[in-house]
Amino acid sequence: MIELNFEKMGGLVPAIAQDEKTGAVLMLAFMNREAWEATLKTGRATYYSRTRDTLWVKGLTSGHIQNVKEIRVDCDADTVLLTVEQVGGAACHTGFASCFYQKVEDGALVTEGEPVFDPKEVYKE
Amino acid sequence: MIELNFEKMGGLVPAIAQDEKTGAVLMLAFMNREAWEATLKTGRATYYSRTRDTLWVKGLTSGHIQNVKEIRVDCDADTVLLTVEQVGGAACHTGFASCFYQKVEDGALVTEGEPVFDPKEVYKE
Repeated sequence: MIELNFEKMGGLVPAIAQDEKTGAVLMLAFMNREAWEATLKTGRATYYSRTRDTLWVKGLTSGHIQNVKEIRVDCDADTVLLTVEQVGGAACHTGFASCFYQKVEDGALVTEGEPVFDPKEVYKE
Repeated sequence: MIELNFEKMGGLVPAIAQDEKTGAVLMLAFMNREAWEATLKTGRATYYSRTRDTLWVKGLTSGHIQNVKEIRVDCDADTVLLTVEQVGGAACHTGFASCFYQKVEDGALVTEGEPVFDPKEVYKE
């Protein structure tokens, strides 16, 4: 098993997901050791939810899972970069393709693009 | 000033740097409020070094600064994505273009590509 440095962040490493087709950075989440090993084993991006304190298979509720195509580890082994096939075309719970849909312009945040799905439809809240 | 959520990580937010030309994810570092405001003000990627507990203008020693071309903020305003012009062609202190030069293959880490510079030359250690 590849050993990551989980010490620096109290048991977590940041994990970046990048879209294999567009190259867009989709999101950043965190992995604990269990999430890291699950991702390696299953080939599905699995994170650790800090707010819910639980393992989080991305897309389990929405169906918008991330099939992992490539995994990279940075120079000091404390950050992970996943290249993923984003099922459903959107990584963000807001319905946008990427979580980074807000751009800084003249000192303010401006929303760019349109959501790919309607969260109300997908999450049935 | 755009307000980020620094609370979640005890005063820090993760910041991803992506190369404007290649789209490659170059590195992940952290920003405190001072680093964030300095980045906005100067247009040079400025991070916070956790190990050295100090503001860190990327490239100040090596000359490999990052000119910020675009700044994005994620859905819950706790992560930053910088699109940068990477001066010198390499973001990593090891000399590789990206810090993510190690790829998972058959359960092991394999180095991909070649360094762009020799760290001994650049850092004069």
